[in-house]
Amino acid sequence: MSSPSHAIVNRAKRLVFGRPKRTDQQHQERLGVGSALAVFSADGLSSVAYATEEILYVLVLAGAAASVYSLPVGLAIVGLVLVVATSYSQTIRAYPAGGGSYIVSRENLGTVAGLTAGAALLIDYILTVSVSTAAGIAALVSAVPALRGHEVILSLAAIWFIALVNLRGVRESGLVFAVPTYGFIISTLALIGAGLFKVLAGTWHPIVPPSFGFGFGSPAFHQLTGGVTLFLLLRAFSSGCTALTGLEAVSNGVQAFRPPEAKNAIRTMNLERTLLYTMFAGITLLAFGFGALPSESETVMSQIARDVFGRNVLYYIIQATTAMILLLAANTAYADFPRLASFMARDGFLPRRFVNRGDTLVLNYGVYLLAGLASALVVVFRGSTHLLIPLYAVGVFTAFTLSQTGMVIHWVRDARRTGQPLRRHWWSLTINALGAFLSGTVLIIIGITKFTHGAWIVLILVPLLVAYSLHVRGYYVRFKRRVESLLGEHLAIDDARRVKVVLTIGGLSPVIDHSMRVARRISDDITAVYVAVEPELGEKLRGKWDLKRHGGVPLVVLPSPFRDVVGPLREYVEGLRAANPGLLINLLVPVVVTNEPFDQYLHNGTAEMLLRELRYSEGILVTVIPFYVNMDARAASAITTASPVQSKG
Amino acid sequence: MSSPSHAIVNRAKRLVFGRPKRTDQQHQERLGVGSALAVFSADGLSSVAYATEEILYVLVLAGAAASVYSLPVGLAIVGLVLVVATSYSQTIRAYPAGGGSYIVSRENLGTVAGLTAGAALLIDYILTVSVSTAAGIAALVSAVPALRGHEVILSLAAIWFIALVNLRGVRESGLVFAVPTYGFIISTLALIGAGLFKVLAGTWHPIVPPSFGFGFGSPAFHQLTGGVTLFLLLRAFSSGCTALTGLEAVSNGVQAFRPPEAKNAIRTMNLERTLLYTMFAGITLLAFGFGALPSESETVMSQIARDVFGRNVLYYIIQATTAMILLLAANTAYADFPRLASFMARDGFLPRRFVNRGDTLVLNYGVYLLAGLASALVVVFRGSTHLLIPLYAVGVFTAFTLSQTGMVIHWVRDARRTGQPLRRHWWSLTINALGAFLSGTVLIIIGITKFTHGAWIVLILVPLLVAYSLHVRGYYVRFKRRVESLLGEHLAIDDARRVKVVLTIGGLSPVIDHSMRVARRISDDITAVYVAVEPELGEKLRGKWDLKRHGGVPLVVLPSPFRDVVGPLREYVEGLRAANPGLLINLLVPVVVTNEPFDQYLHNGTAEMLLRELRYSEGILVTVIPFYVNMDARAASAITTASPVQSKG
Repeated sequence: MSSPSHAIVNRAKRLVFGRPKRTDQQHQERLGVGSALAVFSADGLSSVAYATEEILYVLVLAGAAASVYSLPVGLAIVGLVLVVATSYSQTIRAYPAGGGSYIVSRENLGTVAGLTAGAALLIDYILTVSVSTAAGIAALVSAVPALRGHEVILSLAAIWFIALVNLRGVRESGLVFAVPTYGFIISTLALIGAGLFKVLAGTWHPIVPPSFGFGFGSPAFHQLTGGVTLFLLLRAFSSGCTALTGLEAVSNGVQAFRPPEAKNAIRTMNLERTLLYTMFAGITLLAFGFGALPSESETVMSQIARDVFGRNVLYYIIQATTAMILLLAANTAYADFPRLASFMARDGFLPRRFVNRGDTLVLNYGVYLLAGLASALVVVFRGSTHLLIPLYAVGVFTAFTLSQTGMVIHWVRDARRTGQPLRRHWWSLTINALGAFLSGTVLIIIGITKFTHGAWIVLILVPLLVAYSLHVRGYYVRFKRRVESLLGEHLAIDDARRVKVVLTIGGLSPVIDHSMRVARRISDDITAVYVAVEPELGEKLRGKWDLKRHGGVPLVVLPSPFRDVVGPLREYVEGLRAANPGLLINLLVPVVVTNEPFDQYLHNGTAEMLLRELRYSEGILVTVIPFYVNMDARAASAITTASPVQSKG
Repeated sequence: MSSPSHAIVNRAKRLVFGRPKRTDQQHQERLGVGSALAVFSADGLSSVAYATEEILYVLVLAGAAASVYSLPVGLAIVGLVLVVATSYSQTIRAYPAGGGSYIVSRENLGTVAGLTAGAALLIDYILTVSVSTAAGIAALVSAVPALRGHEVILSLAAIWFIALVNLRGVRESGLVFAVPTYGFIISTLALIGAGLFKVLAGTWHPIVPPSFGFGFGSPAFHQLTGGVTLFLLLRAFSSGCTALTGLEAVSNGVQAFRPPEAKNAIRTMNLERTLLYTMFAGITLLAFGFGALPSESETVMSQIARDVFGRNVLYYIIQATTAMILLLAANTAYADFPRLASFMARDGFLPRRFVNRGDTLVLNYGVYLLAGLASALVVVFRGSTHLLIPLYAVGVFTAFTLSQTGMVIHWVRDARRTGQPLRRHWWSLTINALGAFLSGTVLIIIGITKFTHGAWIVLILVPLLVAYSLHVRGYYVRFKRRVESLLGEHLAIDDARRVKVVLTIGGLSPVIDHSMRVARRISDDITAVYVAVEPELGEKLRGKWDLKRHGGVPLVVLPSPFRDVVGPLREYVEGLRAANPGLLINLLVPVVVTNEPFDQYLHNGTAEMLLRELRYSEGILVTVIPFYVNMDARAASAITTASPVQSKG
C-alpha cells in the first residue's frame, strides 16, 4: 500500500527523476539538420565501432590470413547501406508524419506483418541496449585494462544508469547528443585520415604482406585461407550487417524536424548514410591494413587507434568518444521502445497500461521492462557482443524487409488511388523494391548462417509476441462488443433506497467513533461488524457497545472459528444481499495513517487483507476511511482527520 | 490487485494448502507421554546424528589420532545434558502453562533479557531448519552417493517441501511424528547395541590401537596428538554442544499434555534426557571404536552403520530414519518460529500482522519468512552443517542461560511472595543455578572459540533484533498514547450535510451510466470528473455530455499538461476542500471486473494508479465501484453488476 505522505514521496521522486514536463513542451524544439544528425544517428553510426570486428571474428575461424576477405565483405555491406538508406529516404517522403516499420507494415501489408515488424523491433530495442552497452564497456576496458573481468557488472551499471536518466526524462537534444556523436564522427574520421596517411607512407603491416604473393588467386594465399567457405563468408557478411542497425531512426522522427520536415529529414538521412559507409569502409580498411584481429582483451577499434596514434591522448579520445556514442545509442532505445509499445498499446495490441505515461512524460513501464530484459541478456550472454549479435541482426532485417516491402505496396496503391501512372514513382518503387529484396536476402542469409548461434531464439520469440498481441487485441475487441451490448440495457434499480453501510470495526475506540460519523453521512442504514478472531475480544466489545452513544447503530459480532477475517465478512454480506434484493452494500474499511511513513507497515494488517480480498467483489462497494494521526507530540491535536473540520488550528 | 474470481483462487488454495482448521480443534487432542515424546523430542534427539561428527571435525585438525579426545569431550557434554535437562524440568514445574525462554526471561529478568532470548530463539529456529535439513540431506547422500554434489538443491527442495506441508497445516501428532522419531530411536539403539557387541568381540579398530601404548600420558601418544591445545578442546566441546539443541521443546508445550500436564511433561523430559545422553554417548564411543572420521562424502553415522552392519538393509534403515528425524526436526521449527513471533507481536514487539493467522490456523507470514531465510543460509553456507553449527550454538545457549537465570530469580521471588522459606525450593534453585552457570560458561566458550567461525554474526544480529523490537514497541506505545488523547475530543462535524461525491470518469459509456446510478444512491451532490490526458478526448466527452441524460450531474474536464492523472485530481479535490470547509469528499473509482481472471491485468491501469496514490489521502474517502462484465457470449446479459438487481436472468 502506498504511504500517505505523498508529499515526501513526491519530493524524493522529483529529486531522483526530475521535474515533470508538459505535453506541449514535447514539440517545442524542432531540430535542424545539424542537431537532428546528433539526435538520430547515434544509434546508426555507433555500430561502426563493432561491425568490422564482428566480420573479422567470423573470418579468423579460417585462420588469421582469411581476414583479407573482410575487404570484399565490407564492400558488399557498403553497397547494402547505400540501398537501404536510400530506400528509407523514400519512406520519409511518403510518411512525413513518421513512418516506423510497425506503421508502414501494418498499413500496407496488414496486421500480422505490422505486428511482426513491431515484435522484431521491440526485441531489437532490447538488444540495442545490451549490445551497445556491452560494446561501450568493451571500448572502456580496452583503454583501461585494469577493469578487465568486470565487464558484466560495468554493463549492468551502465544499463541502469541510463534507465535512471530516462526515468528523470531527458530532453532529446542539445549538448547531450552533440558531444558524443560529433566527437565520435570527428575523432573517427581523424583516425581514418591519419591511418590512410600511414598506409600511403608505407608503414602498414597487413596479415598477408604484399611480398607474400598477395592476390586472391595465388596458391600460397589459398594454402593460408583454405578454410574459407562460402558459408563462412556469408556468416561474416551476416555479422557485418549489424553496421545497418539504427539506420531507420530518422524515418521514425520526421515530425521532430524543422519545416520543411521531410526535406530536412532526407538531408539528414543522406548525411548519415555517407558518414556511415565512409567510416565503416575506413575502419574495415585500416583493420586489414594494420593487421588488427579480434581479441578477448582489446577491441579492433582500439588496436587500430593504438597503432595509428600510439597510446597517447588521441587514442584515449577515440576510446572515450566510442564508449560515449555507444552508451548514447543504448539510450535512444529507451525512447524508442516505450514509444513503440505505446503505439501498439493504443491500437489494442499490448495491455493498455503501456499507454499510461508517468508524470515525467516518460513511459515508465517500458523503461523498467527494457532495462530488466537488457540486463538479463547481458548476464546470460556474459556481456559479449559476439554472442548477442546473431540475435540482434535477425530482428533488424525482419523490420527492414517488411517496412520496405510495405513501401512497394504503398506506391502501387498510391498510384491507383490518385489515378497517376505508376512510373511517376518509378525511382522510389525501384529503390524500395531493391531494398526489400536485398534486406530479405540478408534476412534469409542471417537466418541460415546464424540459426544455431542464437538466431533461433528470435525466430521463436517474434511469432510468440505476435500471437500474444493478437490475443490481447482479440480480448479487447470481445470486451468492447460485450460492453456495447449493454448501452441500451437499463438495470432495474430501486433508486428510492440508499446504500446499506457495513462498517468494519477494529479495536481502537477513537477510530470507531470517527468512522461512525463518516458512515452516518453516507447512509442512515448502518451496521457495525466485528469479526471475532479472538472470541474474548468480541464478547468484550459487545459488552461495551452502547447503542445510545453510537447513535442507534447495531453491532454484529461474527464468529470466526477458522480465525479468518475475510470469510465470515463475505458470508455476512452475501447473506444480506440474498435476504434483501435491491440492496447496494457499501463496506467501510477504516485505515490508520500517520505522519511517520516508515512505520506505516506497523498498522492496517487486517484492513489491507480486507481491501485485497474484497474490493473487487460482486455487489460490494468498498470504501477506505483514512484516520489520520499526527504522531508529533507537540501537535495540538493528534488527528488531522479525514473529516470536514480540522481540529488542528 | 486481487483477482475477482476468489472462488477459483480459494479452490486452488484448498487444493494446495488443505482445509482450514477451527480454533477449537487446536486443543482437541492432548498427548500422553508416548506420543509427546514423538512430537517434542524429534528436534532434541535428532542432533545425535551430527553432534559427534562436529566434535571430531574440530579434533582432527590436530591429526587423526586426536580423535581419542572425543571421549572426554563427549563425557563433558553428557554431564551438561543431564544438568540442563533436569533444569528444564524445574521450569515445567514452575510454568505449567508453558514456559518458553522468551516468557521466563521476560517475566523474571525484564524486557531486554526476554527480547534477547526471543531474538536468539528466532535466529535459532531459522538455523534449526538449515542445519537439520543439511544434516538430513547429508544422511541421504551418504546412502545414495549418486546424489553427491546436489546437496544445496536437495536441501532447498526439502525446506520448501516442509514449508508447503506447514502452509497446509499439520496436525502435530500421530504417525507423522511417531514413525521417524521411534524409528530413529530404535534403529540407533540397535546400532549401538550391535556395535558394542562387536567391540566386546574384539573386532573394533580405533585410530590409536591399544597395542600402540594407549594412554593419554604416553610419549608416543603425545607425538601423534601434539597439536591438541586447550583451545582446540574447547572448540570441539563447543561444536558438540549442538547435541543439546531442541532440549527446551517440552517446556514450551506443557499445555499439550494430558492431565496432570506438568507431571507427564516432566516424565517425557526425563525420558528424552536419558535417550539423548545414551544415544550420544553410544555414537561417540562407536565413532572412536570404529575409527570413523569426518569426510566430505559420508557422515560419521553412516560410516559407523556401514562398519557395524555392512551395506545391507539395516544400514539403509539407519540412514532413512536419520534423514527422516532430521527433516522432522526442521519441521518443528516451522511451528515454533511463527508461534514465538506471534507471542512477541502480541506483546507489541514485532509488527502486529505477525499475529494474523491465515485461514489454515497457520501463521503464514512466519512460514514464508522462515523458509526464505533458511534457504538463504543454506545457499550462503553451501549446505554445510560444519559452517552453520557455530552460528547455531550461540543462540541456543543464550536462550538456555537467560531462561535458567530467570528460573533462579523466579524461585527467589516465589519464596518471597508466598512467605515460604527459600530452602523449600533448594533443589530447583540449585539445579537451575547450576544449569544457568554451566550454560553461561558454555556460551562464553562458544562465543570465544567460535567467534571468527561465524558466531560474530549472531552476536551482531541478536542486539539488532532486540533494538528493532524495542523500536516497534516504542512506536505502538506512542501511537496508543496519541490516539487515547483523542477519546474525549469531539470533532465539529456538520452532520446535516452529506458527502460530496467526485466520480472519476474513464471512457466507456455503460460504465459511466452504471457508476452514476451508484453515485446517486450515495449522495445528491455529485460531480463527474475527467482528467484529460488526451486533450481531444476531453473535448469529445464534454461535447457528448448530456446534462439531462446524466440527471443534472455536471462534468468537469481537468486539463493535464503533464499527462498525469493523479496530480490534477488531487489538486481539484484539495481546491474543493479549501473552498468548502466542512465538506467530506468521496472519490468514486469504477473498476472493470470480468469472469476471465487471467486477462484482468488488461483493465484498470488508471484505476489502480488512482487507488494506489489517493486512497490514503487526507480528507478523501475512496470508494471502488466494481463493474462486472460476463465475457461469456452465451450469457443473457454481459453485466452481472454491483447494483442490486441482477439482470442475469
